[in-house]
Amino acid sequence: MSLTPERLEDLRGRINARLGSLYTEGPSLLVEPVRYALSGAGKRLRPILTLLTAEACGGGEEDALQAAVSVELLHNFTLVHDDIMDRDHTRHGQASVHTKWDDGVALLAGDAMLVLALAELHKSPRHTEALASSFAAGALAVCEGQALDKEFESRVRVSLDEYNRMIDLKTGSMLALATEMGAIAAGAEQGRVEQSKQFGALLGRAFQIQDDLLEIYSDTDKMGKSLGSDILAEKKTYLMVLALDRFPDELARAVERARTDLDTGLELLRRIFERNGLKRQAEETVQNTISEARDRLESLGQGSQVLADFADLILERDR
Amino acid sequence: MSLTPERLEDLRGRINARLGSLYTEGPSLLVEPVRYALSGAGKRLRPILTLLTAEACGGGEEDALQAAVSVELLHNFTLVHDDIMDRDHTRHGQASVHTKWDDGVALLAGDAMLVLALAELHKSPRHTEALASSFAAGALAVCEGQALDKEFESRVRVSLDEYNRMIDLKTGSMLALATEMGAIAAGAEQGRVEQSKQFGALLGRAFQIQDDLLEIYSDTDKMGKSLGSDILAEKKTYLMVLALDRFPDELARAVERARTDLDTGLELLRRIFERNGLKRQAEETVQNTISEARDRLESLGQGSQVLADFADLILERDR
Repeated sequence: MSLTPERLEDLRGRINARLGSLYTEGPSLLVEPVRYALSGAGKRLRPILTLLTAEACGGGEEDALQAAVSVELLHNFTLVHDDIMDRDHTRHGQASVHTKWDDGVALLAGDAMLVLALAELHKSPRHTEALASSFAAGALAVCEGQALDKEFESRVRVSLDEYNRMIDLKTGSMLALATEMGAIAAGAEQGRVEQSKQFGALLGRAFQIQDDLLEIYSDTDKMGKSLGSDILAEKKTYLMVLALDRFPDELARAVERARTDLDTGLELLRRIFERNGLKRQAEETVQNTISEARDRLESLGQGSQVLADFADLILERDR
Repeated sequence: MSLTPERLEDLRGRINARLGSLYTEGPSLLVEPVRYALSGAGKRLRPILTLLTAEACGGGEEDALQAAVSVELLHNFTLVHDDIMDRDHTRHGQASVHTKWDDGVALLAGDAMLVLALAELHKSPRHTEALASSFAAGALAVCEGQALDKEFESRVRVSLDEYNRMIDLKTGSMLALATEMGAIAAGAEQGRVEQSKQFGALLGRAFQIQDDLLEIYSDTDKMGKSLGSDILAEKKTYLMVLALDRFPDELARAVERARTDLDTGLELLRRIFERNGLKRQAEETVQNTISEARDRLESLGQGSQVLADFADLILERDR
């Protein structure tokens, strides 16, 4: 099946319907924040990826819906907890959970979402044990990526290798889990599961570096999150890590300037990235990583065209 | 096998050895707080209960060690996150994780411990799917209990039924999961799994009410946590709920007094509980719940004596 906007809307609708009905009975202090977090304006990229991977591996939506919803729950669990840690007060244009309630409620709601992800997996019609085992490994990698990200905030120098390792864990693992579980749910054999997983991992890496580019080159409204606070917290991004390695003094001056005058500071940062070819380097890395990801699809055969289309689609966002 | 102190020490040693070696490679900002949280002076009651239940159901330690360690990880995950929420700065006489590091590190370490619990279960030699499915249900119940506990803090009135429901979820579910997984790991048939689970649930209820009693009737050092802060936050306990129902004005005066003079306030509280028979009522409830729990052991046959002994042991603590 080709990837029309109607098809995507249909998949999104199925995922949203399940997300809206999976946890309705329980303490209101848990049910309400969980519902609120899950009803945000997320694009459901990860669960759609799970469903499309299942399709590419010869499975149907009914085989992979639980795994897809489970990935989206895991993703939203990380968002709710990350927002507490980063003191981010908005998410998808609405108040984050800890802002609408408090830190304790958000902490618990996140915990519950992680547990619900697991419970959802156990409703899968088949391959439950393999799915849950992959889920455990993927979720640990995501936590490790988050820990590295936090560690890097307080470090002056981070090498490009270290940065790549961090985004592979934090973003790559989540997309790798999405595609891996899609393949497992479809009953794919081990080799295809592995190729699907690597496709997801590479897609995640490309996605994150592009996110880093978009963050500094699109206005903050479009990204729906606060750029200034990330710059001031010296949050490491692909561009920042490159600049930190090669032009540390210029970078320090731009960040210092952003503290008192955000717009001028940002303009200085952009100039550092462009004049020295760092922006181009990041863009090339995205393109190369995408080609690598596409190579992994070859072994999946014809059915994988839908995944190639989806990769193009999510990397074209906002440009 | 009878339950000698040496036997308990041996079981504790096996659990501690596994806890100490299960997560050693990863980002130091995750490995270190996880190791720290797991190396606290916990008594390992829950995992011992899992091992003893497996034994009572005819299994061996090697069948249930992963499930046992998984329960202890789940328990410690809740402690780390609860300490953040309650702003408790000590745990087992040492700084809590969020105090030694910060809230973000503790949040992540807790998340990782929950995921590690799941990963550990998937190393079980048998019955992995049934174990993981029970784990998901049990962990959700624990989160719900925590949410109710938090909800009750901001409510003036909580009925005894509501309180019982909360402790059944928060404390009962954890012990029920410990015994249920022990039975599953041993390959017990459904009826015995159910009886084992109910034994754990009832033991948990008795344990919590006794904890409520000990909290107010033993000195704070012995319990290793701060009593004053719980009283001042109007944390609901069995005795507080009984008193709130029948002697709300007297109770309010005692709590008010505790705000300026903790010792006198506590003395007033104790007098309310004793003079009106509330303390006796709580003690009788503990005893009756224990008898009920023991009744569940009958269907497990002779092997269950070790569980009855263990129940006596943990309820005799500190008296």
